Amino acid sequence: MDRSSVRSGEMAKSTQLIDNEVFRAYATYAAIVLVKMMLMSLVTAYFRITRKAFANPEDTASFGKGDSAKKFLRTDADVERVRRGHLNDLENIVPFFGIGLLYALCGPDLSTALLHFRIFAGARIFHTFAYLIPLPQPSRGLSWAVGYAVTISMAYKVLSKALYL
Amino acid sequence: MDRSSVRSGEMAKSTQLIDNEVFRAYATYAAIVLVKMMLMSLVTAYFRITRKAFANPEDTASFGKGDSAKKFLRTDADVERVRRGHLNDLENIVPFFGIGLLYALCGPDLSTALLHFRIFAGARIFHTFAYLIPLPQPSRGLSWAVGYAVTISMAYKVLSKALYL
Amino acid sequence: MDRSSVRSGEMAKSTQLIDNEVFRAYATYAAIVLVKMMLMSLVTAYFRITRKAFANPEDTASFGKGDSAKKFLRTDADVERVRRGHLNDLENIVPFFGIGLLYALCGPDLSTALLHFRIFAGARIFHTFAYLIPLPQPSRGLSWAVGYAVTISMAYKVLSKALYL
Repeated sequence: MDRSSVRSGEMAKSTQLIDNEVFRAYATYAAIVLVKMMLMSLVTAYFRITRKAFANPEDTASFGKGDSAKKFLRTDADVERVRRGHLNDLENIVPFFGIGLLYALCGPDLSTALLHFRIFAGARIFHTFAYLIPLPQPSRGLSWAVGYAVTISMAYKVLSKALYL
Repeated sequence: MDRSSVRSGEMAKSTQLIDNEVFRAYATYAAIVLVKMMLMSLVTAYFRITRKAFANPEDTASFGKGDSAKKFLRTDADVERVRRGHLNDLENIVPFFGIGLLYALCGPDLSTALLHFRIFAGARIFHTFAYLIPLPQPSRGLSWAVGYAVTISMAYKVLSKALYL
Repeated sequence: MDRSSVRSGEMAKSTQLIDNEVFRAYATYAAIVLVKMMLMSLVTAYFRITRKAFANPEDTASFGKGDSAKKFLRTDADVERVRRGHLNDLENIVPFFGIGLLYALCGPDLSTALLHFRIFAGARIFHTFAYLIPLPQPSRGLSWAVGYAVTISMAYKVLSKALYL
């Protein structure tokens, strides 16, 4: 492997994907929803610490030894709620990331693509508030369904454009 | 940022990734298994509603107030089974998506790539049926192992082609 | 669809992404951490079998019928620990994969990119050992935070380079 061989022409080409406006829009919204998903870890940590509800014995060691620490090895309703929200993000944002990437490479109209990305990001941010506050149903259910429908719409475009079985 | 600057030459180049036959095959099978994974959400919702087994108090509000609704805040064996299947998909389909993308960009033979993608997709679809019906073991275990081996085989190709530590 | 139409010029271009040194480094470290995440499945299987702690009735059928098999349908502290580590990988390695891909396409300096990828991979491998041994806190917490910070740093670069709302 010759690390000094910079084939500048090819490198320039490959990095220009980010100059495509649809791809830039995808990169923006994908980064936003992935960072939003990552924030769930901080919310979980916040609730674990304020509710003193931990999953691992080594996490409670600073509260003392033996039984005095063991009582913090417990589940807490708020912690479990955030964790369900986090898992729901994994189940929905990960397919958006994957299918959205393929969709962005299929050359959709910029305005159509932006519509998909914006609605998805908005729906998932609303979903998080609906889950954590919590808002009465069907707020959370509807925001979930909107994000789901957007992803399925992009999958349909990918399969009709790229189908190669 | 000048949105009106359409550098059409570069845009054309970037979107042509989807004209590569290996990449089209990858996009097709990746979209199929991601959509299959998303369907697990619908199966979970179906079992939660028919078994009346929910995780959030706000989800049971339509069944009445107080204790009459609280009894639906429970776990159900069928719901938990679907959720385990969904998590298993996340644990296996997500690595396939990621490693498969890198693999498709490594320029493998079309026929070898198709073999990998088809076996993986078939194994994971079978795995879902084996989990949900459920079929006696080792049906589920073997279908899991086949998908796992396909992904490791693609990872080996990626690392031997692209290695740059 | 004319499968025999090989537009070699375009195919050559698309597959050359892997010739970009930053992208090769990304592919290498992304494959390493995804394979590391997949290994958690094997560790879970190992503990389930050695601890005889299973989640599905069909998995215990080989231990006999009725109550003699039912007692193996249980949770085990070691199995649950590995599963928490696996879920933590999903929550952190998946955002790294997604944001790292966008980052690699943003054309960062090779040395900066390598620094991000190496620190992330090292932090997550250390995190796994810290979780499974387990090491006393804050070993696990710090290694989690390092990987998290690296991913946020890449997300910042992606958003400042590609922002298109």
